[in-house]
Amino acid sequence: MPKLLILSREKNDYRRLIESAKLAELEFADDPNLCDIVFGEPKLIQDALPHLTSLKWVQSMYAGVEPLVDPAQRHDYVLTNARGVFGAPMSEYVFGYLLFLEKKMLERMKAQEAKQWQRPQSGMLHGKTIGLLGVGSIGSHLAGTAKHFGMTVRGFTKGSEESPQVDQYYHGNDLLKFATDLDYLVGVLPRTKDTHHIVNKSVLEVLPDHAIFVNVGRGNSVDEAALVHALKENKLAAAVLDVFDKEPLPENHPFWTTPNLYMTFHTSAISYPEDLTRLFVENYHRYLAGKPLKHIVDFERGY
Amino acid sequence: MPKLLILSREKNDYRRLIESAKLAELEFADDPNLCDIVFGEPKLIQDALPHLTSLKWVQSMYAGVEPLVDPAQRHDYVLTNARGVFGAPMSEYVFGYLLFLEKKMLERMKAQEAKQWQRPQSGMLHGKTIGLLGVGSIGSHLAGTAKHFGMTVRGFTKGSEESPQVDQYYHGNDLLKFATDLDYLVGVLPRTKDTHHIVNKSVLEVLPDHAIFVNVGRGNSVDEAALVHALKENKLAAAVLDVFDKEPLPENHPFWTTPNLYMTFHTSAISYPEDLTRLFVENYHRYLAGKPLKHIVDFERGY
Repeated sequence: MPKLLILSREKNDYRRLIESAKLAELEFADDPNLCDIVFGEPKLIQDALPHLTSLKWVQSMYAGVEPLVDPAQRHDYVLTNARGVFGAPMSEYVFGYLLFLEKKMLERMKAQEAKQWQRPQSGMLHGKTIGLLGVGSIGSHLAGTAKHFGMTVRGFTKGSEESPQVDQYYHGNDLLKFATDLDYLVGVLPRTKDTHHIVNKSVLEVLPDHAIFVNVGRGNSVDEAALVHALKENKLAAAVLDVFDKEPLPENHPFWTTPNLYMTFHTSAISYPEDLTRLFVENYHRYLAGKPLKHIVDFERGY
Repeated sequence: MPKLLILSREKNDYRRLIESAKLAELEFADDPNLCDIVFGEPKLIQDALPHLTSLKWVQSMYAGVEPLVDPAQRHDYVLTNARGVFGAPMSEYVFGYLLFLEKKMLERMKAQEAKQWQRPQSGMLHGKTIGLLGVGSIGSHLAGTAKHFGMTVRGFTKGSEESPQVDQYYHGNDLLKFATDLDYLVGVLPRTKDTHHIVNKSVLEVLPDHAIFVNVGRGNSVDEAALVHALKENKLAAAVLDVFDKEPLPENHPFWTTPNLYMTFHTSAISYPEDLTRLFVENYHRYLAGKPLKHIVDFERGY
């Protein structure tokens, strides 16, 4: 009988949802030593790894699984991550902030406060060019929304060219060509050794002054000092950051007060237990049938 | 030889664009008495009507043509209005503001200002229900964007059921049924005698407290006093208004300072001379060929 350990701050919610799915043979267990399956948050799972002596499969509730792919950790089980559930919320976040900036909502609020009937020019997404750094399941979703709004879409990826909504793909040495003349650059990269500071001084320099940078991937992909410099020198219109190299962001970090930098707090990918449970249930059926699981993480690659 | 009078504040831009289309037989003229065609802004055309003794066709640069359908004016010519060019900008405006509110962008900016790493719950468009008051060319475009974001779409129209993206249509006496339990109500109605105060106390009362009302149609459709009351009593989460009964909004109007009321200044439908000229050129070819024009306005109906 498969035995499941749930490691989440919303453990009770997940247990209720899984119970209502009435999965064949599945038992819940609290003793890590007995469990072959874990469904949970990567950091909590990392802490439990030494006690998970029967472990066969981990279903992560997050897309990012850094604590588990860490080379110092054991990798003797199948790790699957959460995919396909973050595209919609990420898309709402990214295009919400792009529209917020293009429609000059703050300026209009100030005009209202001053009781001034003003008609400043506002911009359109329509006709603009967006560059997606990373085109996996989330990037593909963003590409679809960009096309809905009438945009040109460039994608920079390591290898995969999965999305038919991307107009042009770029790889490897073509990073600067990819970034040149973008209206919007959106980072959707996982934290791996290859993505460290990929958004560096050179990339920021080839972006036009009116460009907006949004990062919803991982903070390590950005050279934070170079970004602060670009914003201070007005070499970039704005940056919207949901992720940072260190989280929570230290109190003395320059980002808090950098002009035209809009910060949120690793909240762009709201996930719902219902969606994640659906993912778990689907993979559980495969696990029970001995079929290959969906969304298996390559420990070496890191995602 | 057809003779064209352009009546617009951007007259020179339009002339240049039309010249570059190299239209057969067309001549530009400045004497209104000689012109059979006028391409322009409704208010300027209304002022010129007494002098347009040879008038056969008016192509409006706006969707709203109130100054021309006014019963006190002559209606002895074919009036076509601008359609199909405002859907994209309106959609960016409407969904931009809905995302701004759902993502609690102001709260996050305040957290950043206070250097506080906060993770407030933010909402999703996905799964919500939007109601479109008016489903013509703009409403249909909004319906498409709503479906892209995974929403349920209700449409209230006088008669037409043009958009396949609308999940359910409502008519006439079903207005309150249409409005009940909507998460978002969006007004896209023209100013006609039938649309006066259609968003009244009863409609506002059946909307849930968390609902957001957006008006990008015409201001006369809203009972402004009832709206102020609903917002003050927290019977409505927010209102986003681009149009008003009187524009510019008088300085002593309560809207300026009503809580949770976000105001813009009749700027939601940015139009580009290129788009409007394309519309004119297409209709000119029809005019020259004696074919029926596109987007003919019914003077009686008002749109």
